[in-house]
Amino acid sequence: METLNSSMTYDQRLSEVDIRGSMAYAKALEKSGILTKGDLEKILSGLEKISEEWSRGAFVVIKSDEDIHTANERRLKVVTDLRLYMRNSCSVLSAHLLQFIKTLVERAAAETDVIFPGYTHLQRAQPIRWSHFLLSHAVAFTRDSERLGEVKRRINVLPLGSGAVAGNPLGIDREFLRKELDFASISLNSMDATSERDFVVEFLFFASLLMIHLSKMAEDLIIYSTKEFGFVTLSDAYSTGSSLMPQKKNPDSLELIRSKAGRVFGRCSGMMMILKGLPSTYNKDLQEDKEAVFDVIDTLSSVLQVATGVISTLQIHKENMEKALSPDMLATDLALYLVRKGMPFRQAHAASGKAVHLAETKGIAINQLTVEDMKSISPLFGTDVSQVWDYANSVEQYTTPGGTSKSSVTAQIEQLRELLRRQKDLF
Amino acid sequence: METLNSSMTYDQRLSEVDIRGSMAYAKALEKSGILTKGDLEKILSGLEKISEEWSRGAFVVIKSDEDIHTANERRLKVVTDLRLYMRNSCSVLSAHLLQFIKTLVERAAAETDVIFPGYTHLQRAQPIRWSHFLLSHAVAFTRDSERLGEVKRRINVLPLGSGAVAGNPLGIDREFLRKELDFASISLNSMDATSERDFVVEFLFFASLLMIHLSKMAEDLIIYSTKEFGFVTLSDAYSTGSSLMPQKKNPDSLELIRSKAGRVFGRCSGMMMILKGLPSTYNKDLQEDKEAVFDVIDTLSSVLQVATGVISTLQIHKENMEKALSPDMLATDLALYLVRKGMPFRQAHAASGKAVHLAETKGIAINQLTVEDMKSISPLFGTDVSQVWDYANSVEQYTTPGGTSKSSVTAQIEQLRELLRRQKDLF
Amino acid sequence: METLNSSMTYDQRLSEVDIRGSMAYAKALEKSGILTKGDLEKILSGLEKISEEWSRGAFVVIKSDEDIHTANERRLKVVTDLRLYMRNSCSVLSAHLLQFIKTLVERAAAETDVIFPGYTHLQRAQPIRWSHFLLSHAVAFTRDSERLGEVKRRINVLPLGSGAVAGNPLGIDREFLRKELDFASISLNSMDATSERDFVVEFLFFASLLMIHLSKMAEDLIIYSTKEFGFVTLSDAYSTGSSLMPQKKNPDSLELIRSKAGRVFGRCSGMMMILKGLPSTYNKDLQEDKEAVFDVIDTLSSVLQVATGVISTLQIHKENMEKALSPDMLATDLALYLVRKGMPFRQAHAASGKAVHLAETKGIAINQLTVEDMKSISPLFGTDVSQVWDYANSVEQYTTPGGTSKSSVTAQIEQLRELLRRQKDLF
Amino acid sequence: METLNSSMTYDQRLSEVDIRGSMAYAKALEKSGILTKGDLEKILSGLEKISEEWSRGAFVVIKSDEDIHTANERRLKVVTDLRLYMRNSCSVLSAHLLQFIKTLVERAAAETDVIFPGYTHLQRAQPIRWSHFLLSHAVAFTRDSERLGEVKRRINVLPLGSGAVAGNPLGIDREFLRKELDFASISLNSMDATSERDFVVEFLFFASLLMIHLSKMAEDLIIYSTKEFGFVTLSDAYSTGSSLMPQKKNPDSLELIRSKAGRVFGRCSGMMMILKGLPSTYNKDLQEDKEAVFDVIDTLSSVLQVATGVISTLQIHKENMEKALSPDMLATDLALYLVRKGMPFRQAHAASGKAVHLAETKGIAINQLTVEDMKSISPLFGTDVSQVWDYANSVEQYTTPGGTSKSSVTAQIEQLRELLRRQKDLF
Repeated sequence: METLNSSMTYDQRLSEVDIRGSMAYAKALEKSGILTKGDLEKILSGLEKISEEWSRGAFVVIKSDEDIHTANERRLKVVTDLRLYMRNSCSVLSAHLLQFIKTLVERAAAETDVIFPGYTHLQRAQPIRWSHFLLSHAVAFTRDSERLGEVKRRINVLPLGSGAVAGNPLGIDREFLRKELDFASISLNSMDATSERDFVVEFLFFASLLMIHLSKMAEDLIIYSTKEFGFVTLSDAYSTGSSLMPQKKNPDSLELIRSKAGRVFGRCSGMMMILKGLPSTYNKDLQEDKEAVFDVIDTLSSVLQVATGVISTLQIHKENMEKALSPDMLATDLALYLVRKGMPFRQAHAASGKAVHLAETKGIAINQLTVEDMKSISPLFGTDVSQVWDYANSVEQYTTPGGTSKSSVTAQIEQLRELLRRQKDLF
Repeated sequence: METLNSSMTYDQRLSEVDIRGSMAYAKALEKSGILTKGDLEKILSGLEKISEEWSRGAFVVIKSDEDIHTANERRLKVVTDLRLYMRNSCSVLSAHLLQFIKTLVERAAAETDVIFPGYTHLQRAQPIRWSHFLLSHAVAFTRDSERLGEVKRRINVLPLGSGAVAGNPLGIDREFLRKELDFASISLNSMDATSERDFVVEFLFFASLLMIHLSKMAEDLIIYSTKEFGFVTLSDAYSTGSSLMPQKKNPDSLELIRSKAGRVFGRCSGMMMILKGLPSTYNKDLQEDKEAVFDVIDTLSSVLQVATGVISTLQIHKENMEKALSPDMLATDLALYLVRKGMPFRQAHAASGKAVHLAETKGIAINQLTVEDMKSISPLFGTDVSQVWDYANSVEQYTTPGGTSKSSVTAQIEQLRELLRRQKDLF
Repeated sequence: METLNSSMTYDQRLSEVDIRGSMAYAKALEKSGILTKGDLEKILSGLEKISEEWSRGAFVVIKSDEDIHTANERRLKVVTDLRLYMRNSCSVLSAHLLQFIKTLVERAAAETDVIFPGYTHLQRAQPIRWSHFLLSHAVAFTRDSERLGEVKRRINVLPLGSGAVAGNPLGIDREFLRKELDFASISLNSMDATSERDFVVEFLFFASLLMIHLSKMAEDLIIYSTKEFGFVTLSDAYSTGSSLMPQKKNPDSLELIRSKAGRVFGRCSGMMMILKGLPSTYNKDLQEDKEAVFDVIDTLSSVLQVATGVISTLQIHKENMEKALSPDMLATDLALYLVRKGMPFRQAHAASGKAVHLAETKGIAINQLTVEDMKSISPLFGTDVSQVWDYANSVEQYTTPGGTSKSSVTAQIEQLRELLRRQKDLF
Repeated sequence: METLNSSMTYDQRLSEVDIRGSMAYAKALEKSGILTKGDLEKILSGLEKISEEWSRGAFVVIKSDEDIHTANERRLKVVTDLRLYMRNSCSVLSAHLLQFIKTLVERAAAETDVIFPGYTHLQRAQPIRWSHFLLSHAVAFTRDSERLGEVKRRINVLPLGSGAVAGNPLGIDREFLRKELDFASISLNSMDATSERDFVVEFLFFASLLMIHLSKMAEDLIIYSTKEFGFVTLSDAYSTGSSLMPQKKNPDSLELIRSKAGRVFGRCSGMMMILKGLPSTYNKDLQEDKEAVFDVIDTLSSVLQVATGVISTLQIHKENMEKALSPDMLATDLALYLVRKGMPFRQAHAASGKAVHLAETKGIAINQLTVEDMKSISPLFGTDVSQVWDYANSVEQYTTPGGTSKSSVTAQIEQLRELLRRQKDLF
């Protein structure tokens, strides 16, 4: 029974915020006349002593708790502790996350001239900028950052002082408590305050979706780091090799990141099952919340730092990226060429299809067709058609917002930098 | 293969928004010079004709699509359709949800004088107002409403016009498209726009957490409607009976609600697994998104309306509620009585414990102890101690915000009414 | 990166089986001529020394590993260790599980004469024996025991000696290894052997379903231990009380058990997400397997022992159970009375309905209708109808296998005892 | 409420087995004297008529049900129907699964001479036979087949005749019912029989793990079908192309298969959440079982047939597979060469490392080192070292069971053929 019920290690994590909460509550009790000034001073100095002991590593179980918390209020105290702890952790995680996004964005800014294939269905589709790829991931992570902000807002609600069921009968000034502990608002209903773990589940979900984004980025890079793709090489710090096969670098870091998506999702889905069908107010089932939260905070913290390290030290191989581009990826560009010369879209598409077919029949690449070959398909083709086969030209066509042209990629970088600045201010 | 790939029934759902999106895109193409005014008119009138046919029930597959959407843009078109559909659905669901919360709040406002036991661990803990219980659920649902608003904001981003990989090369004016389709903003990166399904997963998660809240309320009411508790009776419309056992009313509606938490969670967790480790941009795996979304929208829509019906037609049994209150639930009140007379909290707690013990020893209820009995424990006890045993007095002690006193409950009702007004304006 | 990759604590758990596996492998190497007899002896005595150190608590990282395992074989070694560890754990868990079932069965055997309401939809349905209820749970757990046996069979397959990818090139005698380590069979394909974690996922699923069964039993007992039902009281060791409310006993143990269903399910679903879409053979993602397995083994072990304790110390309240029975639960019995007298089933049902209605009209309980009242409904009613209202008679009607009559309950007990004997022999 | 409660479409699925069950139950009622011979004949001919109508597509709701099933027994009837339906489906799915495994095995048998890289961490590790890869998947699917057999055994238990709570009071001969409906055994306890859905959850879990295996195979083949790997090409029936990019073949079928792992897992996890914490016997929550089961049966049925089609029509590119092999993958082979000449393993490993290093220094491939170069590292190197660089020789070293040598692969094929024969007999 003890094994099942143990929460000692979690209590240690919460010791600092726990004392902070106890101090605030003692002050509120004094304010409402339950404690005398003398009582308060004794309690505060006692708590400070414990705080010092804890900071020196000596964990002594807090006793004065009994003096100031009724049983009902103690439940709320624990939830308040968890919220304080998570609020701090959100700030730390937000810093890691923004640093990671910044690393993606600045790498994108530094390598805008690298062109390589964009894939759909893992099949080569169109030439794109490497930066465009990096930014596609960065943009996804900004949504995670936005969600973290929203979760934090719902964490930042004070339950303390509302009592577990009927409420707090001691005339506690909850607004005073809120200010002391720097919460944004107070909880509305005591029964809900005791048992709601929305902020826990939401945090675990935010973490799961962030991890899913990371797992997708990891998947891309694992594939790009195969011998066959050869686009990137992980630095030694983030891969493992073999003395006998020096060219084989196992992308362990990325695989670990990918796997943590499952781990974190498991914590989220586990907590959701725990809450399903639970009766109102406190049930011991809720005790599972802390271990899940702590595990996920630790995991995210490591994963984000490793991901930042992987991206900032990743070596790219431009020559392999270029080699992976081929004229057949530009058949749509050929159609666009005709559209720009005034041909209706559907006709242009058909003409381009004929060129593809002609090249196939001749057994040559489509860019090796002569201008005469092309003119036989449409008189609109001119000598300037050769420009179509230039990958650098190709990417420059996509100037619409969100596209892969230099101007568009640069605009994305600027938008993300601005967004990072704003989100940094929020935390 | 066809069975596996079929999406016909989903396309039908999206037909209306699909035509709206196609019209906007055709207009944008004309604006950027790809289509002539004449082309545009033909396309628009063609789409209108299809729209009419569809509204008459004749589903004809849209052909003009090929004229205006390149393959790459078509992917974005589908995502845009889904976003338009979900945006509409969010408004409908929000209305159902707010109506449901309103039903809880107004019922709470109408029945503030009903007192019954508040439970922790399903054990009777303290007398509370029935309204306080109803509000504890209402408050949880307001967080769902808040989350729905946030999800809607992330749904309300236009991907159309950004192209699936490299971008849109036709000089499309995405800002024009955004206005035409009334989106709040446009997507930042074409690769991300194609494949991100955050808005889908977030919606499924919002729905899962809402369903978990509903499952908890259902659990409470199922227990309260047992013969043993006897606090509530479901109306016939929301329960099933038996001709042979007319007193047995099975709370089928509540059980169905509770079970849907599992169903919706399954959709959410399934979608999360689909996304885990998926490479960038479009992969056919994403096709699972629509069925999950439609199923969950339908489920929520039914469940919320049934829940509203259950609450608005629920019969309560005040006499049983009162009978379930007993003096032993007021031992803490006895301690508070002493605290108010100046006794330090810990001493008061001990004195109350002695009274409990004394009553047990005498084999009587604690409120049957004489004033002399009480005085033998502490001289602070006076004849006014009899007021402690009044449940109506008891609940009035909890005046702190979030408590169960009349003033506090009334304040909660006011806050929720105000919140409902504000959230109604948002949608 | 180190934090993310750390597996030290897990290695400690596996140390004992690890040495056992290393010894077997060294012997096999000697057999195939790779090691000399002298080498072998040195290695074996080295391993024995390490084993002793470990048993004294001194954990020294094993070095001799490099001498005998190629990199490829080392992967297999770890999987073999995990399988050895889980095989042992299955035996321990099986013992706990069988002990728990036995506790349910023997309690059922001791209390066959206690009658109380059987519920559907948490509404009183029919009188049943308390033993029948206990056995309904016991039967569910026997399926868990059966599944554990099947999982164990798939754990009990030796991967060692097959190499991670191409295979083992050292002429290792895998049949010798199998016998040395007492496995039932050897794995069929080296690539599959390295990466398959079916045995892990299956184990986690077995555990999840077992926990779901436990959560249902916990739910029943939590409800039965409410003041309102009052059927059972948990012993002090498995509940927590309050000095101020001595009658309030919180069923913490049952709530903890119920919550662990979520925890274990989270581990299972997390591992499944990790495996989804993973490429062939070894990927670092698989490293998550051990922590999940160890956590679930520990959880099951505690939970099963606590559940056994709860059941064996549970106090039942026969008088409350009897009080919860009422004549209206016997309306079907009245119909059966007529069926036995030759009335077709549908007619008998209608006649019983009339009796119910008549009693309602008269405002009395159905068993208070006079024989004349009854005869007015059907001449088949005689004075012997009074026997219908005897709950002890009622339960005795259900003699079909699986029913609640004494003979049927006793038969169930015998079947379960026999099943326990057989399953005990298997482990 | 109706929308929420509708089960019409599911009832249609079960109509055939439903009539079969009703006939058996009517016969049992006649046997126990509840029905006369005449009643029975009328009922049977009525049921036969309904059966005919249904087979002609006219779905008429069964009325005679009321004549023969009491309310309590009706619950059991539905579970019996579901078990009958699932038992039939298991046979169909088993046939599809075995056919799929056979396709893998026979393809492996036909292409044993194709050699290509085996990967770990998606990095080239060692040369292996293509057949070895195919068999690694086949072996995983045989475990699914084994599990399906076990699930089927637990489906094949008859609940009918045990009554929902107290049992069946009509003296029904359940052994007779069992034989009539060809079940292997009867359920032990009526309360458990009504509410246990182990067989449903187990089936959903079996399906989830099977789908996870399929998702892994799909992932491998999607990667192998990239332009960069170029090992395989899907047939047109199982991929989609583009007129403008004829070389681009999107592996839609494999992506759909991969995505269904999420869908099926969602059904499994949803059902598990539904069951968690549910009270004993029947609750309406259980009604979710059928839709989940039907959806998963349909999904598996399609997916398995598509997977069989993909494998049997897959084109492989031997030349690309060969090109992907390189001498650096054989460094371990070089060490083995020395071990076979008597060098201790650790020394041989070091010597091979020196050769790798020497080749790197010289800027040549390791197989281009002269015999003199090699002898400078160890005198044990001779002219026969050239054989090491032969990939066909390399794979032949792995003769241990489970390895990639021809003899070992052939043995695997034989084992799997034998296993398929045995499993075919079981269903």
